[in-house]
Amino acid sequence: MTTEAALLAREAPAPPAGRKAWARRFQQVRDQTTGLAAPLSAEDQQIQSMPDVSPTKWHLAHVTWFFETFLLQPALGGYRAFDPAYGYLFNSYYEQVGERHPRPRRGLLSRPPLADVMAYRAHVDAAIWTLIDTASEAEWARIGPLVELGLHHEQQHQELILMDIKHVFWSNPMRPAYAPAAPAAPGAAGTAPPPAFADFEGGLVEIGHDGAGFAFDNEGPRHRIWLEPFRLAARLATCGEYLAFIEDGGYRRPELWLSDGWAAVQAGGWTAPLYWSCEDGACSVFTLSGTRPLDPAEPVCHLSHYEADAFARWSGARLPTEAEWELASASAPVDGHLADRGLFHPRPADGPDLTQMIGDLWEWTASPYVAYPRYRPPEGAVGEYNGKFMSGQMVLRGGAAVTPAGHVRPTYRNFFPPGARWAFSGVRLAQDA
Amino acid sequence: MTTEAALLAREAPAPPAGRKAWARRFQQVRDQTTGLAAPLSAEDQQIQSMPDVSPTKWHLAHVTWFFETFLLQPALGGYRAFDPAYGYLFNSYYEQVGERHPRPRRGLLSRPPLADVMAYRAHVDAAIWTLIDTASEAEWARIGPLVELGLHHEQQHQELILMDIKHVFWSNPMRPAYAPAAPAAPGAAGTAPPPAFADFEGGLVEIGHDGAGFAFDNEGPRHRIWLEPFRLAARLATCGEYLAFIEDGGYRRPELWLSDGWAAVQAGGWTAPLYWSCEDGACSVFTLSGTRPLDPAEPVCHLSHYEADAFARWSGARLPTEAEWELASASAPVDGHLADRGLFHPRPADGPDLTQMIGDLWEWTASPYVAYPRYRPPEGAVGEYNGKFMSGQMVLRGGAAVTPAGHVRPTYRNFFPPGARWAFSGVRLAQDA
Amino acid sequence: MTTEAALLAREAPAPPAGRKAWARRFQQVRDQTTGLAAPLSAEDQQIQSMPDVSPTKWHLAHVTWFFETFLLQPALGGYRAFDPAYGYLFNSYYEQVGERHPRPRRGLLSRPPLADVMAYRAHVDAAIWTLIDTASEAEWARIGPLVELGLHHEQQHQELILMDIKHVFWSNPMRPAYAPAAPAAPGAAGTAPPPAFADFEGGLVEIGHDGAGFAFDNEGPRHRIWLEPFRLAARLATCGEYLAFIEDGGYRRPELWLSDGWAAVQAGGWTAPLYWSCEDGACSVFTLSGTRPLDPAEPVCHLSHYEADAFARWSGARLPTEAEWELASASAPVDGHLADRGLFHPRPADGPDLTQMIGDLWEWTASPYVAYPRYRPPEGAVGEYNGKFMSGQMVLRGGAAVTPAGHVRPTYRNFFPPGARWAFSGVRLAQDA
Amino acid sequence: MTTEAALLAREAPAPPAGRKAWARRFQQVRDQTTGLAAPLSAEDQQIQSMPDVSPTKWHLAHVTWFFETFLLQPALGGYRAFDPAYGYLFNSYYEQVGERHPRPRRGLLSRPPLADVMAYRAHVDAAIWTLIDTASEAEWARIGPLVELGLHHEQQHQELILMDIKHVFWSNPMRPAYAPAAPAAPGAAGTAPPPAFADFEGGLVEIGHDGAGFAFDNEGPRHRIWLEPFRLAARLATCGEYLAFIEDGGYRRPELWLSDGWAAVQAGGWTAPLYWSCEDGACSVFTLSGTRPLDPAEPVCHLSHYEADAFARWSGARLPTEAEWELASASAPVDGHLADRGLFHPRPADGPDLTQMIGDLWEWTASPYVAYPRYRPPEGAVGEYNGKFMSGQMVLRGGAAVTPAGHVRPTYRNFFPPGARWAFSGVRLAQDA
Repeated sequence: MTTEAALLAREAPAPPAGRKAWARRFQQVRDQTTGLAAPLSAEDQQIQSMPDVSPTKWHLAHVTWFFETFLLQPALGGYRAFDPAYGYLFNSYYEQVGERHPRPRRGLLSRPPLADVMAYRAHVDAAIWTLIDTASEAEWARIGPLVELGLHHEQQHQELILMDIKHVFWSNPMRPAYAPAAPAAPGAAGTAPPPAFADFEGGLVEIGHDGAGFAFDNEGPRHRIWLEPFRLAARLATCGEYLAFIEDGGYRRPELWLSDGWAAVQAGGWTAPLYWSCEDGACSVFTLSGTRPLDPAEPVCHLSHYEADAFARWSGARLPTEAEWELASASAPVDGHLADRGLFHPRPADGPDLTQMIGDLWEWTASPYVAYPRYRPPEGAVGEYNGKFMSGQMVLRGGAAVTPAGHVRPTYRNFFPPGARWAFSGVRLAQDA
Repeated sequence: MTTEAALLAREAPAPPAGRKAWARRFQQVRDQTTGLAAPLSAEDQQIQSMPDVSPTKWHLAHVTWFFETFLLQPALGGYRAFDPAYGYLFNSYYEQVGERHPRPRRGLLSRPPLADVMAYRAHVDAAIWTLIDTASEAEWARIGPLVELGLHHEQQHQELILMDIKHVFWSNPMRPAYAPAAPAAPGAAGTAPPPAFADFEGGLVEIGHDGAGFAFDNEGPRHRIWLEPFRLAARLATCGEYLAFIEDGGYRRPELWLSDGWAAVQAGGWTAPLYWSCEDGACSVFTLSGTRPLDPAEPVCHLSHYEADAFARWSGARLPTEAEWELASASAPVDGHLADRGLFHPRPADGPDLTQMIGDLWEWTASPYVAYPRYRPPEGAVGEYNGKFMSGQMVLRGGAAVTPAGHVRPTYRNFFPPGARWAFSGVRLAQDA
Repeated sequence: MTTEAALLAREAPAPPAGRKAWARRFQQVRDQTTGLAAPLSAEDQQIQSMPDVSPTKWHLAHVTWFFETFLLQPALGGYRAFDPAYGYLFNSYYEQVGERHPRPRRGLLSRPPLADVMAYRAHVDAAIWTLIDTASEAEWARIGPLVELGLHHEQQHQELILMDIKHVFWSNPMRPAYAPAAPAAPGAAGTAPPPAFADFEGGLVEIGHDGAGFAFDNEGPRHRIWLEPFRLAARLATCGEYLAFIEDGGYRRPELWLSDGWAAVQAGGWTAPLYWSCEDGACSVFTLSGTRPLDPAEPVCHLSHYEADAFARWSGARLPTEAEWELASASAPVDGHLADRGLFHPRPADGPDLTQMIGDLWEWTASPYVAYPRYRPPEGAVGEYNGKFMSGQMVLRGGAAVTPAGHVRPTYRNFFPPGARWAFSGVRLAQDA
Repeated sequence: MTTEAALLAREAPAPPAGRKAWARRFQQVRDQTTGLAAPLSAEDQQIQSMPDVSPTKWHLAHVTWFFETFLLQPALGGYRAFDPAYGYLFNSYYEQVGERHPRPRRGLLSRPPLADVMAYRAHVDAAIWTLIDTASEAEWARIGPLVELGLHHEQQHQELILMDIKHVFWSNPMRPAYAPAAPAAPGAAGTAPPPAFADFEGGLVEIGHDGAGFAFDNEGPRHRIWLEPFRLAARLATCGEYLAFIEDGGYRRPELWLSDGWAAVQAGGWTAPLYWSCEDGACSVFTLSGTRPLDPAEPVCHLSHYEADAFARWSGARLPTEAEWELASASAPVDGHLADRGLFHPRPADGPDLTQMIGDLWEWTASPYVAYPRYRPPEGAVGEYNGKFMSGQMVLRGGAAVTPAGHVRPTYRNFFPPGARWAFSGVRLAQDA
């Protein structure tokens, strides 16, 4: 497990019950966000190192804008916006809410200063408490789910804050560290277990969220799907295995790549995953704790979909579909905080146990991100949350060490364009049985 | 039916039997290609109006290179390449065959002149006849399928020749015509039938090619898939219906669009389908026979996937998946040259007959172009034909009026990036039942 | 005079004599720089709003690097670099000194933080004092001129700090102000004098710096040049005059523009000078004190060379050559702090006095920035200061309100690419006599 | 002298006297143009290999359009345009004449076909004969100069046809030849004379055209200029000398380059002049007669201004100003067809004779292309011929082997952007005396 794994407390929050519990939960998530920003100076929080990256300060404000826009303004009588300009500055992509500051220019906003953004957070927090406290039962039935959505939204940005600051610091030739490295566990840089596959029978199965507990709209509806028998690697692919791919000419052999992937290799001059530096055969990796030697036993991270796909082909395997992954995850051994949700119990039909399924690295699948059958986005601007991105992206599953505890689920569908590499993304091999 | 429908003879070729029949079939397809180029001057055949478009001359040479490279050089003893340089000039994208001339620079090749390319065709034709004539039975068993593949490949380029020359002529402010307009059938510019949907029950069905007769690798393996009940429009959407979408602000309302689609609208300044010109509410369309007034009853053509998707959303519908389309096509009424292949017999479960399924317009589906379960590309360079493009593209089904007769099948999977508009692509609406 | 005129104290420093005086002068200039940064937060000082702009923090560090690199490291025994990485981070463009951080990425350097840059300044200041104090006479004779060069270099960056932060704040939709507006002088927004021209006889004249006192290398050698008789406008063109150009279709009439200029108008969508906003005929301008209504009597500012040239053509005039400007400046009336340098005494041959020649706005000339006859850049890396930019740029003369007092001279050659608009650049008309 | 030197007959035409002579001269120039196109197929004449290049066919039509637009339409009563669309298609850059086909899309015009363009030429030729024949004396006084301008314009395009087709053929991997190589003169690939400089005294001199005989507007007015003493190389720099520059790391040493030049080296990956191919120390050059080994004694050609400037700096020299060049050219020995114009008689003050001044290679000067004092472009659209390009370009002098005989003069000012390399451009060194 990477040192990055220790960045987020991994105790799973119990699902709140009652408004008091919701107020506590709200404050807990909000505090986690500011906690993540705490090691960063106002200058650090200002930087946008590429159009895909947002400044930490912008994240802090945007998640706050989400509560203001979708909860306070429609639902809290007499609420006054902290600053009317923020509606323009901190809207991310909600066309139906109005115009917004262009994404690639988020890094130009030295004003409002960080202090104002922190005051904005306090202002909105207080108003949310009031709302939770004073809403009628009928109102609460309607807005409770929006509070919950806002908190899951904020958790997504907690992960983005870490993804983005990693890229920010890597873009600085001084390569500063976000946090000191955790002391290595005894024997940490050990060896990965040998590769092994677990077999699954497939058949007519169900995937998708069943509606019990929170899920994003794109995780449902739960629906039937036919799966042929398949096999799934018991663990993530390692840096050592990926190094063998590189040494076997992986980045120089077009026959291993999708056509678009090969074009990306050429255009980007790719010769290794993002954040790797190799010289004379020795590689180091840049992490949130700075640069350190590559550990061959560690799961390989910061791959694009194209690299994951080429590596799988080279390995005589393929990427799993999201349905295969989701079916298999139901049989993963109970581990950590997810145990108490009772989600995991079956075992693979045959073969070794699956490990590293949840909370290690996002795993690229072979599945383009499209709507499930009968999917409908919610009405209104909040419907833009997920649905309009169902084009040109690939699904990732499982969550990473930087994903907040309790945020991820087996049905959770993350998505990125196939060329993106700054997410904490790895690869688990699959094969036809 | 558009005047473009008359461009290709629509009699279905009987599947050849015996080598003589194959030789005849070979010549027939080769002659169709040169026939398509016949109305074009050497100058016309030189033009590449955008990187996606290839000059006619290049198409003529490339399909010939395909036979030379995959048949003559490996299989015809003593064969001498017509010109060794052609291997570089006319390779399209086969990495394993060697380096190639960059695609966006195909229009710079005034040499070899058209006359040389025609001589190249004759040289290769003669050698193929010899090969068909002289191959041992064992050899023929191996190379016969490659002859067949080469002919289907050439037919794909027949369609590309028409797609591309349309864009070439549209890029010329003089807007020349490729061919005179066919005389309109009596009452041709009539009215489209009112919109109607046919219902389908879904369930556990099979799709994909079953191996009887020719198919591309990407059409199989045939496999099971679960479908929820659905409805499919009995005909293609019309220009009149699309005009209503435009007039309702279709191109100005982001809530109707996928995020990438909206970006394409902005970047391209799209306000109508490709080849439309509208002024003061009156629209004309550019066709292979020149510019003429828009016919509201005619199927709307030259849409991107983004436009098809937005139009479907505006219509309270969605695009069909490729599996839905394929299942439904099995129930389409027997029409034209496809009848004798016995492919079509069932009827929709309920509702009106499906029309315009085959050979009218390519129909965008909601399905990203990915591999079917257990798909394996063929060994060697020919394996690059389809497999490596399984990323970032969407499936279209059904063939268009410019698709050669007998070339398309219900299982046929065409694919283009979602922003492409120069194919003869339209839209058929679908709904959940 | 704009409110921006008050930003820099305008008392001219007496040229220092003796090392004590140099030490005082050194500290005075260094303090002026930090004074300019004082109103800005660390976040403000972090922003790079376009590749041409540098963050304030970067300016603060780069001018310090200049002293460290060209003085302390070669000349102060035992000097230890403050941080070895700074040599890479804060080198602007000196190829002979080594690799450097790419210019368009200066805004990504949240580290070193502003506090470290201030410590860097203090470290270098102390070492420079030591150097001034302890250098032998022989050494001082060699390094004194480099101290002087470093101070003039720093003054150039003082102006850049103001130019750049203006662009930074304008790039923020909140349009913050750098400094409060100075109270308007009584009758300030008055009227400009009517346009008038002063006549000059030309002939065989001398231009260029004569070597008495400091000058940049590019101001010499002084040399002879033949000038035909010419006329020069007595004052800068005003916003009111430029407004008349706009209202006469100036930005829509290609015949008024250089070919490259017309291309810039189209590509940039220019309809007014940078920082103007016009709606329904009423214009406002963004200044370092925020946005305020346009004052028609004020000199028009933030023009590109192309706009200045087109405006001159529309006015039935042309831009002056730099030689004409320099010759005429010798006859400008003595004004302000420049009086005591005794530089200005002659009068124009005929006509009204010239005003606003020095310290109002940089004036675009018709002269490309090339070397004077027999110009030689200094040996070594410091020779890259000016010479290598003698291509593709145009000369501006006279200095602006944001130019530090005492920094500008009649022989001073500023230069920018013809499309640049973020300098404080205006226009004075010229005509053939 | 390159084999390219033989491409154009080099007899100087006597300046015509009388209308008959003008009609003959007109036909002679027009025939030279079609003669240049004669070796090219219609396909060849279609190609535009980069935006700066125009297809031969387009050149043939454009020079014809020039006569139609500036002579026939205003001056020949009853003239009917050959095709009204041609006004749009073949206008190059005359804004005042109307809209035009975008320059980078000239290669897309397969229609009109070459045959139509040839008919267009015949149509316009006949009308011009009529005009010459029938114009009143008063009219002729006005339009005679336009006929002359049109012929000089056409000669400029004769050179462009050769420049452009060279680039077209070089862009084709088959590297075809435009014309067979002329048989080498006995001892042709001999040795260049050793480098030597001729000295000039400078002083107050006059340059610019004096109005006797034809000149372009930008060559005047003749005016005084002060020149310091200088020296000019007696011959052009050779490929052998340039090779020494390359081998001394010329393309890897930023200190030798202007800042913009160094950026061009990096961006373009330049390691040698355009059309050179070097491998293992042996270089070949692509010419209009195909590829052949580099001749070290031959003048180095196809340099950008940046390369010429860097080479001069490396040589301990500099580029001449255009005034120096023009002054010196007056002392060049009488050579070839220019002798009978009596233009050349003086000798250099001291040192060896100047050679290769006229008709060998265009020589880059140190002078940006700006207006001479008191220059005024002609009224109307024809005023766009030269004046509006006086920005961002550098002057070249002397003409090349591909320049039509009699077209060039010592006062002739050619101009290209400093990064352009596809002109036949070389370098002659200069030094301060």
